Amino acid sequence: MIEMWELRGEDDRRYSTFSWRTRMALRHKQLEVRYHPVLLTDKAAIGFSGGTTVPVIRDGDTVVRDSWEIAQYLERQYPTRPSLFGGATAQALARLVNDWVDRTVLAAAFPAFSCDLLPVQCAQDRPHFAALIERLTGLAPPELKKHQPRNLERLARVVDPARATLKRQPFLSGDGPAYADYALFSVYQWARIAGAPDVLAGDPPLAQWFGRLLDLNDGFARATPAGR
Amino acid sequence: MIEMWELRGEDDRRYSTFSWRTRMALRHKQLEVRYHPVLLTDKAAIGFSGGTTVPVIRDGDTVVRDSWEIAQYLERQYPTRPSLFGGATAQALARLVNDWVDRTVLAAAFPAFSCDLLPVQCAQDRPHFAALIERLTGLAPPELKKHQPRNLERLARVVDPARATLKRQPFLSGDGPAYADYALFSVYQWARIAGAPDVLAGDPPLAQWFGRLLDLNDGFARATPAGR
Repeated sequence: MIEMWELRGEDDRRYSTFSWRTRMALRHKQLEVRYHPVLLTDKAAIGFSGGTTVPVIRDGDTVVRDSWEIAQYLERQYPTRPSLFGGATAQALARLVNDWVDRTVLAAAFPAFSCDLLPVQCAQDRPHFAALIERLTGLAPPELKKHQPRNLERLARVVDPARATLKRQPFLSGDGPAYADYALFSVYQWARIAGAPDVLAGDPPLAQWFGRLLDLNDGFARATPAGR
Repeated sequence: MIEMWELRGEDDRRYSTFSWRTRMALRHKQLEVRYHPVLLTDKAAIGFSGGTTVPVIRDGDTVVRDSWEIAQYLERQYPTRPSLFGGATAQALARLVNDWVDRTVLAAAFPAFSCDLLPVQCAQDRPHFAALIERLTGLAPPELKKHQPRNLERLARVVDPARATLKRQPFLSGDGPAYADYALFSVYQWARIAGAPDVLAGDPPLAQWFGRLLDLNDGFARATPAGR
């Protein structure tokens, strides 16, 4: 059984956006997982990985960290399971989509949602995360909250390419979901777990796609403790 | 032989960004082409297509317009030629990349480069294009030119995901080029033909990738009349 380290907040919320990519990838590969939820500030718990961030997985003697590295490992190690990528060219393009999510979508989503995540975190993590928010956005969390409407609008503009694509196909990856979908999904799942405003409510192409992903695997992602 | 309609400017510059996607796609499929260059304002020349924009292709009795539709047609019609997409999942993701180029990259590239394209166009097209610039950017071309440094910086930020990906693989589509590469290529080729500032000069990952695409098929894209 594969073990996976991820973040936990109050009420057992598993809020790490990058860990959701790995969670979805492991399910896609139909692999059983034992989760180890850790605090954001508990770097000792994942020190064995050689890094300071989740997700981390251990598969037998192999430890892999970084969600993209983990996805590539799973595809290589479990080639007879359903493909996470759908071929070499699709894997290359999934990397671009993953980079787009990290550098463009998350850059817009962090200012839009992080103020709502703060109260969801365990008390001992909050000072650290509040400082991160201030460092990345230049605003203290209460100030950032006041700018939320504008930041949500900006996020809606940034994901316009995905909206256009999803008007013409059910998943970013085509007829079925694959890793590129999980990368973008992880952002909205993070917001959902935090209980941030439901920005997809008035956005049918993205909302329907998000619903399809929440429904996968008997509603595995829908069932996780969340703010809405 | 396939016929293709595209735009022409002064000194036979074939400057249409969308047509470059089709040019590269036709070469990728190793298909012979006869080009029909038309003026931007000469809608009568492409009236047979039922639309008002290039590219348009005619293949026997079949007429197809819109670069994305043409790419899909070519892949379906010529399945034994080198694949433009690399499989169903990759084709779905190429649509997302194509939508990203249209909606995010071109939205940044148009204000950055269009002022340099104007003098490259034939005289009878310039009033129409100047009005388009003013409508889309809110600025007359000479005013827009003054903002070019800032707009070029914005474009450089917008393509950051592609830059990150290209640090780790030679093409967006992996080891070899495919349609997603041609979509982004078309933007920089448009700027090159216009003689706009070489924004890639200080951007090695993108510059090297662009050079690899210019070198394809005996430097076919490099040999076209261009401002630099």
